[in-house]
Amino acid sequence: MNKLPLQTMLNGTLVSDISIMDRGFQYGDGLFETLSISKGVVSLWDHHYSRLEKSCQRLSIAVPDKADLLNNINMLMEGIDTENNKYVVKLMVSRGVSGRGYAVTDSITPNVVLILSDYPGYPESYGQTGVKTRICDLKLSHQPLLAGMKHLNRLEQVLARNEWNSTDIVEGLVCDQNNNVIEGIMSNVFIVDNDKVLTPKLDQCGVEGVMRRHVLEYLDRKNIETEINNINQEQLFSASEVFLTNSIIGIWPVRKIDARVYSVGPITRLLQDRLVK
Amino acid sequence: MNKLPLQTMLNGTLVSDISIMDRGFQYGDGLFETLSISKGVVSLWDHHYSRLEKSCQRLSIAVPDKADLLNNINMLMEGIDTENNKYVVKLMVSRGVSGRGYAVTDSITPNVVLILSDYPGYPESYGQTGVKTRICDLKLSHQPLLAGMKHLNRLEQVLARNEWNSTDIVEGLVCDQNNNVIEGIMSNVFIVDNDKVLTPKLDQCGVEGVMRRHVLEYLDRKNIETEINNINQEQLFSASEVFLTNSIIGIWPVRKIDARVYSVGPITRLLQDRLVK
Repeated sequence: MNKLPLQTMLNGTLVSDISIMDRGFQYGDGLFETLSISKGVVSLWDHHYSRLEKSCQRLSIAVPDKADLLNNINMLMEGIDTENNKYVVKLMVSRGVSGRGYAVTDSITPNVVLILSDYPGYPESYGQTGVKTRICDLKLSHQPLLAGMKHLNRLEQVLARNEWNSTDIVEGLVCDQNNNVIEGIMSNVFIVDNDKVLTPKLDQCGVEGVMRRHVLEYLDRKNIETEINNINQEQLFSASEVFLTNSIIGIWPVRKIDARVYSVGPITRLLQDRLVK
Repeated sequence: MNKLPLQTMLNGTLVSDISIMDRGFQYGDGLFETLSISKGVVSLWDHHYSRLEKSCQRLSIAVPDKADLLNNINMLMEGIDTENNKYVVKLMVSRGVSGRGYAVTDSITPNVVLILSDYPGYPESYGQTGVKTRICDLKLSHQPLLAGMKHLNRLEQVLARNEWNSTDIVEGLVCDQNNNVIEGIMSNVFIVDNDKVLTPKLDQCGVEGVMRRHVLEYLDRKNIETEINNINQEQLFSASEVFLTNSIIGIWPVRKIDARVYSVGPITRLLQDRLVK
């Protein structure tokens, strides 16, 4: 189920381990990006780097150089058949190594980790006819200082994902403690209501996905009305279309949420057609 | 400031690194205990192990064997002058190594990490005349599924601790999003009000400290009235005594919270006299 990666790299060197004293391991003190590699090119690299940069700034972690990161990603893929296969690279930036204590010394150098994996073998039906989902019992906690970021404190996602183990259900939808719909465990969620496309506000919890941004920017360019706001479960249940996005899956229509059935709608199809290769 | 450890151990072997794919590094998917070693003996070991065991069960992580853990701790300290010096051992249990994805396969074996450090050189005045503290701006988020546990998702503590860098201020007190006082960043907090000892309820956030439990059990045995409840800032400010506990510091009186001054009271002194060696 959890296939091990092809290759791992730390600060430009192919190694499989990291210091026990790395603050990523000690405290989850860091960030990550999940990159889709197609024909050897990182999809939406500018968006990924821009989110990483902003998040590093919010956490006062030194921002890794953009060109250096890309050089390392290219090094990681040397000897790999990028012409015929897609890959996933997880890019992690931890604050670096320190001794005991939450306090940060000025002199810490971030650790940059790259993890190269095969592209996950999702069935084509997920994109074509949609996926079955469920609403998780776990409610995401509110923390405006961490909201929006793809940081390394992911226990909520681990717990939510392990609420079920049927392979039939592909993704879990998570709400916050006010029962507003926030996101999927590994994806963002959009709904369509009367030709308007809505996606949850993520100022209290949730991850501002790069694919979410890409979709919103496209809809804006096409003058399709969008709204970023609180979305409650009633709105979710009465939506005409529901779809999920992330950098790896692209766009998946939601076919079922628990017992509720949805059909794949025109906006989902338009977005798949224009944005997913 | 952040002194590096003397020795680190992974599953009984002295090494300094851990797999990049360890879920502690990937997701903060694990737990820790901070042990005080005095004359070569782990203080309050039963309490530590019991908390670790309960937390592992809550997160569905396999519980490490108690005797094995103690054997490894003793191995870690071989050749160290435990007769004359105190030490700190951080015991970490991660869910173990897996490939991509939040889902957990049944077959994961936990990784047990031990980190041996010198005892921190806190000035004696901290215990004698008390410490200066401040109220942090960060508000802890509510997550009942994680509350009470010493898990590896510690970004809130990292952010709170880095709100200030004056060495004058020794600890930060953190409230939740309802402005109830919850704990110190690295300690638990107690207040005394009319001869009753109160400490915050930790069912929504916070860590149930081993020293906190030790203090509560002692007070119960001595028929000193205790209460575990919500504590608002007014109660904190009007308390006759405020003190902090953790396994390493023992018990520190609070002398100042921001501009507010407290004196060291009789219950704090009694507890220090009976429980701190």
